[in-house]
Amino acid sequence: MNYGVVAYIMGWILKAEAAFMVLPFVVGLLYREYSTYSYLITAGICLVCGLLLNIKKPKKGGLFLKEGFFVVALGWIIMSVFGAIPFVISGDIERFIDAVFETASGFSTTGSTILTDVEAMSHAGLFWRSFTHLLGGMGVFVFLSALLPMLGGNPINLMKAESTGPSVDKLVPRMKDTVKILYSIYLAMAATECIILLICGLDLFEALCTTFGTVGTGGFGIRNDSLASLSPAVQWVVTIFMILSGVNYSMYFLILRKKFKQAVTLEEVRLYLFIIVLAVVAISFNISHLYPTTSETVRQASFQVGTLITSTGFATADFDLWPEFSKAVLVFCMFMGACAGSTGGGLKMSRILIMIKSMKKQITTLIHPRAVVKVRMDGNVLDDEVVHSTMVYVSIFVSIFAISTLIVSLDGNDFTTNFTAVLATLNNMGPGLNKVGPTCNFSFFSDLSKLTLIFDMLAGRLELLPLLLIMAPKSWRKNL
Amino acid sequence: MNYGVVAYIMGWILKAEAAFMVLPFVVGLLYREYSTYSYLITAGICLVCGLLLNIKKPKKGGLFLKEGFFVVALGWIIMSVFGAIPFVISGDIERFIDAVFETASGFSTTGSTILTDVEAMSHAGLFWRSFTHLLGGMGVFVFLSALLPMLGGNPINLMKAESTGPSVDKLVPRMKDTVKILYSIYLAMAATECIILLICGLDLFEALCTTFGTVGTGGFGIRNDSLASLSPAVQWVVTIFMILSGVNYSMYFLILRKKFKQAVTLEEVRLYLFIIVLAVVAISFNISHLYPTTSETVRQASFQVGTLITSTGFATADFDLWPEFSKAVLVFCMFMGACAGSTGGGLKMSRILIMIKSMKKQITTLIHPRAVVKVRMDGNVLDDEVVHSTMVYVSIFVSIFAISTLIVSLDGNDFTTNFTAVLATLNNMGPGLNKVGPTCNFSFFSDLSKLTLIFDMLAGRLELLPLLLIMAPKSWRKNL
Repeated sequence: MNYGVVAYIMGWILKAEAAFMVLPFVVGLLYREYSTYSYLITAGICLVCGLLLNIKKPKKGGLFLKEGFFVVALGWIIMSVFGAIPFVISGDIERFIDAVFETASGFSTTGSTILTDVEAMSHAGLFWRSFTHLLGGMGVFVFLSALLPMLGGNPINLMKAESTGPSVDKLVPRMKDTVKILYSIYLAMAATECIILLICGLDLFEALCTTFGTVGTGGFGIRNDSLASLSPAVQWVVTIFMILSGVNYSMYFLILRKKFKQAVTLEEVRLYLFIIVLAVVAISFNISHLYPTTSETVRQASFQVGTLITSTGFATADFDLWPEFSKAVLVFCMFMGACAGSTGGGLKMSRILIMIKSMKKQITTLIHPRAVVKVRMDGNVLDDEVVHSTMVYVSIFVSIFAISTLIVSLDGNDFTTNFTAVLATLNNMGPGLNKVGPTCNFSFFSDLSKLTLIFDMLAGRLELLPLLLIMAPKSWRKNL
Repeated sequence: MNYGVVAYIMGWILKAEAAFMVLPFVVGLLYREYSTYSYLITAGICLVCGLLLNIKKPKKGGLFLKEGFFVVALGWIIMSVFGAIPFVISGDIERFIDAVFETASGFSTTGSTILTDVEAMSHAGLFWRSFTHLLGGMGVFVFLSALLPMLGGNPINLMKAESTGPSVDKLVPRMKDTVKILYSIYLAMAATECIILLICGLDLFEALCTTFGTVGTGGFGIRNDSLASLSPAVQWVVTIFMILSGVNYSMYFLILRKKFKQAVTLEEVRLYLFIIVLAVVAISFNISHLYPTTSETVRQASFQVGTLITSTGFATADFDLWPEFSKAVLVFCMFMGACAGSTGGGLKMSRILIMIKSMKKQITTLIHPRAVVKVRMDGNVLDDEVVHSTMVYVSIFVSIFAISTLIVSLDGNDFTTNFTAVLATLNNMGPGLNKVGPTCNFSFFSDLSKLTLIFDMLAGRLELLPLLLIMAPKSWRKNL
């Protein structure tokens, strides 16, 4: 490990966090909240630590894949820990571990909360909570790597660690341009949603917070009932933007480049939309007796499918009370997740496609032993390495899932609660079923369980490997 | 598909089933049960059908991998359907689908039952039920292939479809000798257990039925409380033989060949025993307050871990009432299963080893990008194909699991029930949690759910691929 580079980048990330905290501070000032100075104080702490770490520029550059993964994992942990400080100083959250849970949930765009009463929070706190979704959604290091080309080595190694899905492609030859395009699409989507929400009658504060939660597929709401008390129009807008945020951003890039034919034939996006339609239809039939009108039934079904498949985690209905079949469909939506290259979490559609295609290949090889079968995606033959690492990903996922559920079950809650709590955090979802259902929160877990779930949230957001790497003693060794 | 060969082998399997049914008939005669003639009648039906199918010897031989898998899948379905007939004729089970569920559960060594009162069954019925475990444990086709070398092609293709684990090795160069060795070990183990159980005071009938359930890792008991009312000595004997039955049979072969050093260093067996010890210790601490003495605590923990990790499914305690942590440990034992090349079900230890080693490889490659890392097992480098097909196996497992849970949840039972019912059948376990807990049964499910669970039991026993193959329309095409 090249500790010089690691420390240097940690310095930059703390300076960036200091800058980000100015925003909630300003919000607090506007609402004349005294506690908002906690953000200024923390920004100062971050700035000082950041400057100290940046005093010495590393002699040797070199940001290889290992350093990239290491830096990203450590950076996200540090961001969550420092980001938690203002919650405690301001008194919005009493215990530090709860505050870290909340920030990790925010940055990882999970949306699970330990708050029993969201509405009691200060405006600055609510804004910071939602703003972490916007920051975490597209990735902080991706953003930094466009600004800071002085790191040496290849910044695509940061992007590889922070992006979602089995493989990372540069959209354009220059990394910096790729990042600019991605961030432009992301922010344009956020701006569009915010404007539409304002037209629908939300005030600016709520429109902004809701937008951050949507485009980052985060899911922190600013009301105790999440989005249930908002108008049907707002719920539809959020549904559509959640689903759009779960689409692979390459599609938008292709559309920008006017390659419409390629854009509409992306297999991953097709599967994603197909599953959404299927799930909405199945659930609508299953819950039709619960709602007075068809339009309300379809809206509730669409919203809940959209929020869970994209791993956002907003809620407009307590789906824990829905029939078991609908709950099972929703649990599988939670598992599958959105497209690779989107801000959504979960297993990702492209991995599911690769799994389906590998199974097909296995069966075909059994029927035609001499046939040469290749796994193809969008017409291109997939490298064996991608197929293999997808399978390893699934194995790691299952292992982390199993161990986490075991640890969490030490608290003595029921199986469904433990199982869906781990699923909700590892897939960056937010709510689960039973005691962690959409109307509940995570405050009742023990500290050990909360630490486990914090690990799961960050591991899920960073696609498992970076967090595992940081736990491997070998990776801490100094480079020779 | 070479239908000539398929029909011919189906003929033989029916003739074999006719022969097997003579045993329960004799048992019924000894107990002077009138209903036992149902076994004679069914044996007659099987014999006639078998002879009809055997009239024409196929012109072209050739039992390739495809035919092997196809024949085994179809054969197990036919065995389960014909094996269900006597239950209905004798009146032991009222509905035909329930009877098929019971025989499929028997042959697949699952041990899930739809019976609400086992003790009300005839002796012939109880014997046939348990006897299917003995037949299914080691595999019927493996047995047949040693007797019938006239099939043409390579009988290892039958064995590949019917054996457990990611790869099949012949223990000795000749297939026929391998089968003889495997069956000798199997039957010797059964005989030993039966004698010890007789010494412990069981009558011959109960000793036989319990032995069949143990060595086949089946789990049908002949008492309503499974093995709970039997003496601690009997429970310990069964515990030990269950665990021995879950060991890879290659170890016994190595011991027979006096290769003790190789036998004790088998990685798979070591992991298996390590996990058993770990689980027993963890559960013992967790449940110590429930039982009066340490010896009873350890016995209950050992029995339940043994029965679930080997996928047997006997019970001596209602573990559904145990603390959540113990239940979670047991659920993961259910998932993992026993060793490859044993009679046990589940994912198998060797697959878990391959997964762990692949993960390690991935991390090592990340830390040392230029290192050439190979996945090794017992010192041998594993073929990429084996590693890959293990991953595909896990994918198929997860897919079948998901779809089955969705179908079963249509009945409206709770998530834990649906989830563990599918797990219990797909892994050939027997009991699950909640409504399918160790003191309950599967009779309340709808016919659709029962059909799904029957498919899962057979798919689980035959390691998924054969049952998938038989559902692929392509595989039904006639050979050119």
